[in-house]
Amino acid sequence: MNRVGRGPRDVREVRIRTGVQRDPAGSVEVTFGQTVVIVAATVGASVPPWLQGKSQGWVTAEYAMLPGATPERQGRVQKGRSEEIQRLVGRSLRAAVDLKALGERLVTVDCDVLQADGGTRCASITGGWVALAMACRRLMDRGLLAASPIRHQVCALSAAIVDGEVLVDPDYSEDHRAQADLNFVMTADGRLVEVQGTAEGDPFPEDLLRVALARVREALPGVLEAQRRALQEGRFP
Amino acid sequence: MNRVGRGPRDVREVRIRTGVQRDPAGSVEVTFGQTVVIVAATVGASVPPWLQGKSQGWVTAEYAMLPGATPERQGRVQKGRSEEIQRLVGRSLRAAVDLKALGERLVTVDCDVLQADGGTRCASITGGWVALAMACRRLMDRGLLAASPIRHQVCALSAAIVDGEVLVDPDYSEDHRAQADLNFVMTADGRLVEVQGTAEGDPFPEDLLRVALARVREALPGVLEAQRRALQEGRFP
Amino acid sequence: MNRVGRGPRDVREVRIRTGVQRDPAGSVEVTFGQTVVIVAATVGASVPPWLQGKSQGWVTAEYAMLPGATPERQGRVQKGRSEEIQRLVGRSLRAAVDLKALGERLVTVDCDVLQADGGTRCASITGGWVALAMACRRLMDRGLLAASPIRHQVCALSAAIVDGEVLVDPDYSEDHRAQADLNFVMTADGRLVEVQGTAEGDPFPEDLLRVALARVREALPGVLEAQRRALQEGRFP
Amino acid sequence: MNRVGRGPRDVREVRIRTGVQRDPAGSVEVTFGQTVVIVAATVGASVPPWLQGKSQGWVTAEYAMLPGATPERQGRVQKGRSEEIQRLVGRSLRAAVDLKALGERLVTVDCDVLQADGGTRCASITGGWVALAMACRRLMDRGLLAASPIRHQVCALSAAIVDGEVLVDPDYSEDHRAQADLNFVMTADGRLVEVQGTAEGDPFPEDLLRVALARVREALPGVLEAQRRALQEGRFP
Amino acid sequence: MNRVGRGPRDVREVRIRTGVQRDPAGSVEVTFGQTVVIVAATVGASVPPWLQGKSQGWVTAEYAMLPGATPERQGRVQKGRSEEIQRLVGRSLRAAVDLKALGERLVTVDCDVLQADGGTRCASITGGWVALAMACRRLMDRGLLAASPIRHQVCALSAAIVDGEVLVDPDYSEDHRAQADLNFVMTADGRLVEVQGTAEGDPFPEDLLRVALARVREALPGVLEAQRRALQEGRFP
Amino acid sequence: MNRVGRGPRDVREVRIRTGVQRDPAGSVEVTFGQTVVIVAATVGASVPPWLQGKSQGWVTAEYAMLPGATPERQGRVQKGRSEEIQRLVGRSLRAAVDLKALGERLVTVDCDVLQADGGTRCASITGGWVALAMACRRLMDRGLLAASPIRHQVCALSAAIVDGEVLVDPDYSEDHRAQADLNFVMTADGRLVEVQGTAEGDPFPEDLLRVALARVREALPGVLEAQRRALQEGRFP
Repeated sequence: MNRVGRGPRDVREVRIRTGVQRDPAGSVEVTFGQTVVIVAATVGASVPPWLQGKSQGWVTAEYAMLPGATPERQGRVQKGRSEEIQRLVGRSLRAAVDLKALGERLVTVDCDVLQADGGTRCASITGGWVALAMACRRLMDRGLLAASPIRHQVCALSAAIVDGEVLVDPDYSEDHRAQADLNFVMTADGRLVEVQGTAEGDPFPEDLLRVALARVREALPGVLEAQRRALQEGRFP
Repeated sequence: MNRVGRGPRDVREVRIRTGVQRDPAGSVEVTFGQTVVIVAATVGASVPPWLQGKSQGWVTAEYAMLPGATPERQGRVQKGRSEEIQRLVGRSLRAAVDLKALGERLVTVDCDVLQADGGTRCASITGGWVALAMACRRLMDRGLLAASPIRHQVCALSAAIVDGEVLVDPDYSEDHRAQADLNFVMTADGRLVEVQGTAEGDPFPEDLLRVALARVREALPGVLEAQRRALQEGRFP
Repeated sequence: MNRVGRGPRDVREVRIRTGVQRDPAGSVEVTFGQTVVIVAATVGASVPPWLQGKSQGWVTAEYAMLPGATPERQGRVQKGRSEEIQRLVGRSLRAAVDLKALGERLVTVDCDVLQADGGTRCASITGGWVALAMACRRLMDRGLLAASPIRHQVCALSAAIVDGEVLVDPDYSEDHRAQADLNFVMTADGRLVEVQGTAEGDPFPEDLLRVALARVREALPGVLEAQRRALQEGRFP
Repeated sequence: MNRVGRGPRDVREVRIRTGVQRDPAGSVEVTFGQTVVIVAATVGASVPPWLQGKSQGWVTAEYAMLPGATPERQGRVQKGRSEEIQRLVGRSLRAAVDLKALGERLVTVDCDVLQADGGTRCASITGGWVALAMACRRLMDRGLLAASPIRHQVCALSAAIVDGEVLVDPDYSEDHRAQADLNFVMTADGRLVEVQGTAEGDPFPEDLLRVALARVREALPGVLEAQRRALQEGRFP
Repeated sequence: MNRVGRGPRDVREVRIRTGVQRDPAGSVEVTFGQTVVIVAATVGASVPPWLQGKSQGWVTAEYAMLPGATPERQGRVQKGRSEEIQRLVGRSLRAAVDLKALGERLVTVDCDVLQADGGTRCASITGGWVALAMACRRLMDRGLLAASPIRHQVCALSAAIVDGEVLVDPDYSEDHRAQADLNFVMTADGRLVEVQGTAEGDPFPEDLLRVALARVREALPGVLEAQRRALQEGRFP
Repeated sequence: MNRVGRGPRDVREVRIRTGVQRDPAGSVEVTFGQTVVIVAATVGASVPPWLQGKSQGWVTAEYAMLPGATPERQGRVQKGRSEEIQRLVGRSLRAAVDLKALGERLVTVDCDVLQADGGTRCASITGGWVALAMACRRLMDRGLLAASPIRHQVCALSAAIVDGEVLVDPDYSEDHRAQADLNFVMTADGRLVEVQGTAEGDPFPEDLLRVALARVREALPGVLEAQRRALQEGRFP
């Protein structure tokens, strides 16, 4: 195993820097090892057509890679995979808020991958939650909301099954030769918002799903802590 | 609970009728209760660019709804959700075959939903496997392959958490008020090809994931049997 | 001539099965020999912008082929030919109704070819008229219309000039080697809604147009009868 | 009837000016009364994929309206109707040439409507044939073809049924209140390349189709003569 | 230098013919030597969304080439370059009008290149101004505007640096081997609306920019005069 | 004038940080005050079709804004303006290299605006040149090129005419109320690669163009110095 200096249960270094863009209500740069994602949460007035007049809000996400984020340059239009990821990010962040309490507002969370080394969707969700929380705090600071509509702290971690071993937070080279990829979106109290497990090679036994979930659960507190610290130190421009 | 005449662990009636289209190498109409999907597997000569000259094949899927498949007519272009489902179907069916043994061929599995009442992605995978197996058999019948490249029997079942109870194979009305949706793609020997669980409302505890998986595993034999029977009776046009 | 068991004036077996989809107001599967088309008529509230406030309705059609409908798999986007056919189907069905009497409603008639063996546009019109009539009847059943807005029974038949002979309702193999293709959309009283004749090879003399029209007129009663029978037996879900 | 100064059988003044564009192999401005179309025939090396290596050529057409061609400005993208017309123009002009004799070449005939007052598709075909003939002549002049691949002189005329009367070559105002529109594409010897008749209001009896065809046939010589004269005087740049 | 019969400071013959299309409020065919552009100015009711309710108008432009306008046939979709040119034309013509005085109206100026031999963007602006002025005059004639909103006479001329010499109004063959292309949009009183200079080969010294501007300024009166004459003689259909 | 702490001739602080992305051959983050652009230069094997086999290379650019780069969130598709800017960046950078000496390679320069406060196109060109030079150096380091194909140092600066005064390197608020915007792309020896001047309000006299050019020329050395320093210190990942 070539995960230099870390055991199978170790997450890469997680850093969340706030305020990297001046204009969005919430803005972070989130780093998991060599993976870097810029996330912006913007608050807009218009909810999607099917919600109009229902006095509730909506959270949506967009996900894209900068062309230089990977060893081979990628074109700007990367539909299939991006669509799927941004739907996952959107669902995960909606689970974090009370949409009624948000009021008739649309929060758009833009995730732009600056550097891709595995785990970009989990980084997007983890950073996205901080950006979303910043945006909600700004609404409160401006007197537009009396209480925060955030009801859960949400973050995400992946795992890979490589040579029969479960590795938490795999980087690209580990991901690449994995038998299975798993992504877990969870709340701070350990409940599941989303589980996704995909066999890349052979189908995998239920046991390994259980092991992966256990190890991710163990590693979660560090990620949750990084989110909380970012919000406290938050340099809000 | 309004699941007329069935308990939480019961799958709706599953029927798989082969040969509904004359031209594709594999063709089925798969029914789960009121959900009906037409699936066609076509064999083509050209693999995607990145596989050319690697002497291996590929399986890809397309998924769409006929506009009249739902109570409200839907337009023909339904990108986000369809993209996601067809990627899932493609991954699941690729897990069923030995791509090397398939040879430099592309099998395209088209899933067109005639009637949608919940579980269309699982029906697509379940029927898709039969259509894929038919296409492989035709390649053998024509002397183009010496042995079947199918290495696993693959099928899919969904579950929903409704009012704290796990319901297997929910129909649309159950799905609609579920706290969480779960989809399992599995092999005949009970291993996992894909797990997808999504909280629609509150996050759900790991326990319920475990219960859902257990109940789906219990219900699987009936679905696997329907696939096998279809292949045996197979009216191959 | 290889039209097994039928003379030049014979139409293939025409079957119209209603209620193949549960949700649309009108739904049929129409069969001309090996050609099978699924047709759904849906009633919507919003007429096109240029008709708004003019207290009249509109009928529009969409036409597509399932990818597995032909010997060679076809991609889902088949613009030129499909556009032309759906415009023809729309015009033909509009001729069947009194748009004023329909009220400010949009009826969309979706024609999806399950299996193509020649004559798909005529099958779409013939089946489309039944689906449209079913949709109008439902409006009456629900008390939304006092009288039927249908003013003509409309159906369609094609003919081909092959080796100097006029063949009614050609299948694909006949069509393929025809000197000319002709399509006639007609009312029950024998008037013309649309005529389309195209020389595929040499230009053809007016005489043959006349013969084709005469033979189609002769064969029409069988098709009209199939439409009427379908409406009477109509299993309306 | 307000067709100032002309009887029901009279065609508007037809003028065909060659050489209006310097670069295309064939170039004309064709005028039917107030309708003006610019047509260019360009010869290219590459036939469509499905014809490659079959030692035969192809003729294709594109049709568009300049935004200022109609009383209401129209956007540049006018898909449905334009697609249908350009397919008709392409088919009609292909009927005029021996594609084998043309050799592996693609002739593209671009029809751009400068001013629309009814009959633009017929003007496009009529002018298109002249542009096509010019392009073939240039191939001969340059020694690329030994003999002309043109095998038929092709032109087109429309008719309208207005108040029970058949009017040849209707202008827009006549077209607009017509019960039916008819378009005939014919060869110099009176055979049919294409017939299209559409009831805009009530279905029409076969008799009127016959009258329309007879009147168009009568009026044809003037149009054929205009084509021939243009080719003789042809100012070929 | 092969500019037959003209010196480096000479503009090609400029002709502006009005009324070439019957329907648009303003319509011209503008010719610079072998370059021919058809320009139509249409007046519409709806300003862009961001101007609604601001009681001011807008002028926008579209630019396209007919496929036969160049030695090699070009497809109808020529995004990059056309976008850039139409934005330039739009900006230049907006500079000519008092948008407040225009009232809440949208003037669309369509520039369609019939023949391209260099300088099509300058011809579009020069002719576009005449079409725009015609459209404004029609608004006054109809009593919709009390005074003309035109506040500047605007035209455009290009220059090229070829072999160290500045050539005014280069044709395509001069343009093609130029070290730099320059375009100047100016008012009748000699002020600048837009300057664009692009080195195609080596960067060029500021001196040559100055010479180019001086020579264009010298040549401007002839172009301004052609605009004025066209407006006076204006055959307004 | 509200340009806090700087005179009309002062450029904002320019910083160029290299190596912000690990994968591209050249990578910088370029900052002009509050404007931040991420630029990546990637080297690919395939030149555009029209250059194949001509033993020369090509440089192309893409320009986009992250949705959170501006006070109002912008959608990811911003065609017109982006097209124009990326064409400018591409032309400007091509002027910096000897395309023959580059060999049959394509360098793609991606400019993604992280934060927009005026002058993004000039920042893109200025940073783009550094990324391009880094990419060329890597080709030399890997022995793929014997000598650098860079023949000019190229950078860009803008100016605005505000209240009759020429301000160098305006920020967004200055730009916004400018009478005219000017952009100059220049080489280190003071020659012009591109000039673009646009009157936003009233046309402007030639004098101000001259003043703007003089002031930009004066300010250039600081920008050129920032480019050189970045290349020397270059942390090349």
